[in-house]
Amino acid sequence: MSHNTFGHLFRVTTWGESHGPALGCVVDGCPPGIRFTLAEIQAELDRRRPGQSRFVTQRREPDQVKVLSGVVPDEADAEILITTGTPVSMMIENVDQRSKDYGEIARQYRPGHADYTYDIKYGIRDYRGGGRSSARETAARVAAGALARKVVPGMVVRGALVAMGTKEIDRANWNWDFIESADNPFFTPDPASVAVFTDYLDEVRKAGSSVGALIEIVAEGVPAGLGAPVYAKLDQDIASGLMSINAVKGVEIGDGFATARMTGEQNADEMRIGNDGKPLFLDNHAGGILGGISTGQPVVARFAVKPTSSILTPRRSVDVDGKDVDVRTKGRHDPCVGIRAVPIGEAMVACAIADHYLRHRGQTGRIA
Amino acid sequence: MSHNTFGHLFRVTTWGESHGPALGCVVDGCPPGIRFTLAEIQAELDRRRPGQSRFVTQRREPDQVKVLSGVVPDEADAEILITTGTPVSMMIENVDQRSKDYGEIARQYRPGHADYTYDIKYGIRDYRGGGRSSARETAARVAAGALARKVVPGMVVRGALVAMGTKEIDRANWNWDFIESADNPFFTPDPASVAVFTDYLDEVRKAGSSVGALIEIVAEGVPAGLGAPVYAKLDQDIASGLMSINAVKGVEIGDGFATARMTGEQNADEMRIGNDGKPLFLDNHAGGILGGISTGQPVVARFAVKPTSSILTPRRSVDVDGKDVDVRTKGRHDPCVGIRAVPIGEAMVACAIADHYLRHRGQTGRIA
Amino acid sequence: MSHNTFGHLFRVTTWGESHGPALGCVVDGCPPGIRFTLAEIQAELDRRRPGQSRFVTQRREPDQVKVLSGVVPDEADAEILITTGTPVSMMIENVDQRSKDYGEIARQYRPGHADYTYDIKYGIRDYRGGGRSSARETAARVAAGALARKVVPGMVVRGALVAMGTKEIDRANWNWDFIESADNPFFTPDPASVAVFTDYLDEVRKAGSSVGALIEIVAEGVPAGLGAPVYAKLDQDIASGLMSINAVKGVEIGDGFATARMTGEQNADEMRIGNDGKPLFLDNHAGGILGGISTGQPVVARFAVKPTSSILTPRRSVDVDGKDVDVRTKGRHDPCVGIRAVPIGEAMVACAIADHYLRHRGQTGRIA
Amino acid sequence: MSHNTFGHLFRVTTWGESHGPALGCVVDGCPPGIRFTLAEIQAELDRRRPGQSRFVTQRREPDQVKVLSGVVPDEADAEILITTGTPVSMMIENVDQRSKDYGEIARQYRPGHADYTYDIKYGIRDYRGGGRSSARETAARVAAGALARKVVPGMVVRGALVAMGTKEIDRANWNWDFIESADNPFFTPDPASVAVFTDYLDEVRKAGSSVGALIEIVAEGVPAGLGAPVYAKLDQDIASGLMSINAVKGVEIGDGFATARMTGEQNADEMRIGNDGKPLFLDNHAGGILGGISTGQPVVARFAVKPTSSILTPRRSVDVDGKDVDVRTKGRHDPCVGIRAVPIGEAMVACAIADHYLRHRGQTGRIA
Repeated sequence: MSHNTFGHLFRVTTWGESHGPALGCVVDGCPPGIRFTLAEIQAELDRRRPGQSRFVTQRREPDQVKVLSGVVPDEADAEILITTGTPVSMMIENVDQRSKDYGEIARQYRPGHADYTYDIKYGIRDYRGGGRSSARETAARVAAGALARKVVPGMVVRGALVAMGTKEIDRANWNWDFIESADNPFFTPDPASVAVFTDYLDEVRKAGSSVGALIEIVAEGVPAGLGAPVYAKLDQDIASGLMSINAVKGVEIGDGFATARMTGEQNADEMRIGNDGKPLFLDNHAGGILGGISTGQPVVARFAVKPTSSILTPRRSVDVDGKDVDVRTKGRHDPCVGIRAVPIGEAMVACAIADHYLRHRGQTGRIA
Repeated sequence: MSHNTFGHLFRVTTWGESHGPALGCVVDGCPPGIRFTLAEIQAELDRRRPGQSRFVTQRREPDQVKVLSGVVPDEADAEILITTGTPVSMMIENVDQRSKDYGEIARQYRPGHADYTYDIKYGIRDYRGGGRSSARETAARVAAGALARKVVPGMVVRGALVAMGTKEIDRANWNWDFIESADNPFFTPDPASVAVFTDYLDEVRKAGSSVGALIEIVAEGVPAGLGAPVYAKLDQDIASGLMSINAVKGVEIGDGFATARMTGEQNADEMRIGNDGKPLFLDNHAGGILGGISTGQPVVARFAVKPTSSILTPRRSVDVDGKDVDVRTKGRHDPCVGIRAVPIGEAMVACAIADHYLRHRGQTGRIA
Repeated sequence: MSHNTFGHLFRVTTWGESHGPALGCVVDGCPPGIRFTLAEIQAELDRRRPGQSRFVTQRREPDQVKVLSGVVPDEADAEILITTGTPVSMMIENVDQRSKDYGEIARQYRPGHADYTYDIKYGIRDYRGGGRSSARETAARVAAGALARKVVPGMVVRGALVAMGTKEIDRANWNWDFIESADNPFFTPDPASVAVFTDYLDEVRKAGSSVGALIEIVAEGVPAGLGAPVYAKLDQDIASGLMSINAVKGVEIGDGFATARMTGEQNADEMRIGNDGKPLFLDNHAGGILGGISTGQPVVARFAVKPTSSILTPRRSVDVDGKDVDVRTKGRHDPCVGIRAVPIGEAMVACAIADHYLRHRGQTGRIA
Repeated sequence: MSHNTFGHLFRVTTWGESHGPALGCVVDGCPPGIRFTLAEIQAELDRRRPGQSRFVTQRREPDQVKVLSGVVPDEADAEILITTGTPVSMMIENVDQRSKDYGEIARQYRPGHADYTYDIKYGIRDYRGGGRSSARETAARVAAGALARKVVPGMVVRGALVAMGTKEIDRANWNWDFIESADNPFFTPDPASVAVFTDYLDEVRKAGSSVGALIEIVAEGVPAGLGAPVYAKLDQDIASGLMSINAVKGVEIGDGFATARMTGEQNADEMRIGNDGKPLFLDNHAGGILGGISTGQPVVARFAVKPTSSILTPRRSVDVDGKDVDVRTKGRHDPCVGIRAVPIGEAMVACAIADHYLRHRGQTGRIA
């Protein structure tokens, strides 16, 4: 990964700040002949868009994506775009840039934010809206991920919020279909959890506080053989992608941290020849990856999102002049940034798998 | 990262299987003028070497490292090698390659191992000793890490085993000096834990079983400003490096997964101007990294190592001919591979930070 | 280099076709604190812009560049933009997209063009305006190059057309200042050549023919020490950049191909200690680069641009249906595409040197 | 390309100096299942080995290659090695390291050599044998190239010396078979040229002088579709690889520099449908590459090698203490280093094409 690029053969470069005219991405290396519609990309963007419930920031951004290059319309149906194999540039214009006085924010280091580290690193900082650390950057990832989903035939990547602060879902109630329900502002797979999360988050929001969350991503239909044994492990590149999301502090694959407490007997995924004569795994502690290479089982990853540091409660900090200050973050902020991390996590997993699909095909030629 | 390379400016390429004539690494991009001795590299290798206690595999490998290129001896003291800025090639010959009949192993897929995925990916597999997935590959990382430690002036990277299976250390007893003690076969920082771990692991070993472990790495003396906001986050590259270690299933930075349960108030690392007039963090929940960029505080990472799948208890599996088999792994195996992961984790963290040190200097020129 | 990216620390990714809504580039890794104006970027773009004389294509494109990210305005003078160290995205909208019937072009392979190879490679082709092979893509390089010029303090990169078809300049008349003169539509450094080139090219143009050209780029103020001995030679990366320009078929450094005929005595650049006590080269056959590393002398590169294949004279070819056809290219075409290659060559050399400047600083820390 | 690595999917990293214990390369990304013998690799190395005629350096190096990793022997025939898809490490030990007094060489900058630029860049220099700039480094490339030749089914890469100093071959006499003849110490394809080159080079050698050379590489059996339109042009990557060879000062593809003097009519490679119903090129001015993508015709590249700077005639220079000196290079040196550049050039072209073969397969899946 370069500073603003990820992937090797399916390469995504993102650019843009939340308070400039636009942001976007360039997807390079996309196979030719991939067919998609603008509506499909837009649908993914709409899933992470702010302003859709009282639990996410009220910034009003239509987040309309434009495809600027790398496609030709299908001759029979101009709605359908076909990739040509050249770079696909996508752009989202920023609309809701409320003019405001950045006086304090420009000079104070918000605790838990990157303000201080930016200044140390670059000696200059775009304090308007958090610069590159703005959650708006993730819109570009989601657009790229929408394309990545099309690269691996038959792959389905879905995500769910499985815990918020101290509240967890009940896995017995898991229902993938419920996640996209209109009554579900949380991407939770457990219908019973909606009321619990609603009450909990209302409380957090009213207190001007924030909470963390735990997200789970499952990729089904991933062919066996993707990844590599050492420094191009599929799990490693998924972990790298998820850790690159704002506010993520931990990543695990399959049973993850729980395996540290297990014995070899508990952790082994036993195999048998199935009725179709093909090898069958009897369990999936490994999360679909063994020795860095996909097994053909579902790929399972989880990541922890810290509570946003933008809270109303004053926190002790310092300013650029070397003076002590107390910082209280006003304005539009998500009480749980983890919610909108669900589609972002899906996008990063989809991109990592698409990249390895092409890399595997390149090295071995053992896949169509 | 390429298949067998990690890092951008401090680039490490490793090669070799456990049953070939040798294994090694090429460190490219090392700054010129770095002074070190062969004994310093060897000392790091000795820390991860097998055969040193009954708790690690009894394979007897001297693991003597040779430096084949990229250095000149100091004119005053030939023990001291000085890097010239050209690639440093290091090689470790394999000595203890017991000839044995690989008949069964060659045809059976050991559950939890990469045997099956290798065959699916490559259509061919070096079944002797696990091929590239052998723990011996990690010797090359440790050699590279010994050099990386020298790249960042003043940096100290240390690691500790903080849990083994269901047993944990008491953090109140943390003593860095104890870790290298001759009485400590576990890299535990808690002297009181030695007896507990000894009894526990003896039991595991006698049962032919295995257990997982939790490792913590702390890098002190890391200058503020290393990393980048989006896809070259320092925490992301540390996570990627740690996830590339065999058997690692999860990685977290600072408070990691615990932050998912926290509020913004709990998680904020407040700041004040210190007595020396410089900004001072009052806490380190972030593990020394904010917005992907180092803060100057200690960088803290933890990773989970699964129990090795090589156990005496028979497990159900299949073979290359598509038949059901029961696999029971005989031979020399670590009951807790996590122990020797401590110096390996240190090496990966040191390499990631050295790489970002050079990248930061390259882009900004803001560091000597 | 990736498919649409060049450079390592100063990385340029370009995107866009000539007949889409826009084209552009993302410059990643630019140091923070670089100060520039939009007018400076635009001035470079204007140098390669079509439609400025009868010797270049009459396509009317204003080529107005927009900077979409990675900068903040100077607080004292909003005309001055300052890079923040995050990706600089620049975009140029396509305006003059004459709607026309692509019927024939869509189905015929123009000889000497990439039509046939595109179809073979991708199985799909954006035949409108040549797709990625359009000369318009080079506008993005020129924009990136304008920024690259600012990265290396004191560097000046200039180019000149030194031959057109069978006509050459007289080096005795070399005058850098004349190149930007309003009376000079050829970027020739020899005032006496203007009349010769004018008559020659008018003839070529009227005949519906085209001619090749030879371009020379000179970079002064390049610090000694940039490059590396083996696969990151400065001359190699300059050659790679120049060969990536459309229609370039050859590149040489310093005395280039002439050295194949020389003896060691003729080719050696002797040295003496100068009056200022510093080493002084008495000659520059090497073109400012020895062993892949800059010497501090001017870096000199030349490249050959083939005649454009778009000519009025019918040429034998085939079509997508496997039938013989005769192709005659109508429309707006440069009789000598080499002319506009001058600012493009400058941009590629500036980018290569800027990249190595950052890489050298990263590895060695031996430059400010 | 990184400092000591080239290629993307077929990646070659070389290491080693001429006066250390060994040198070698790591080939990463090689497809699994490639079958070869050690003798095949050795045969390529023997072609560039010194000490085989009075026209090349008399250093006596057996250049015996060892394969240390990444292969398993064929079960039926242990001579045959099969790649496993993991890194292939190859090593060549240095044998003939005459101990000598480097006193003068250590302190003087030889004109035309990289001595001065190394010191400026790194502040330290391995003056024994030229360090990384030693021609011995190229043995590693040739070993890698021998493997690359196997990656593209049906590809044949051959090279020839076409000019030496002021003497040229007669293309009418071109005979590929003659190049490997025992009577041909020059890799010339023209039997009549041997006597001419012999007399000429004897004269040069006796005068303690040196001359340059022109080398041509032809790759046949290259599938159409390799490369990409912009920054991953096949010609660009071939040019980059050839320019990375020591002493190379210019590279051209197809008609190369001659195209600058041509008209569009002269340069067009016309096409017709052949008797087999497939498109047929009637000419190959383009050298097998259009728009950066291979056409299926032979790929043709030429490069210029400067005369070695190691000559007996004293040249003016300076030393590390800032004093004027006269340098006269004694010892074993090739009067025409271009001769041995033939197999090296072949290797670089083979590697570039192999890399693009895998990249094309990765992105498009349109090749087996």
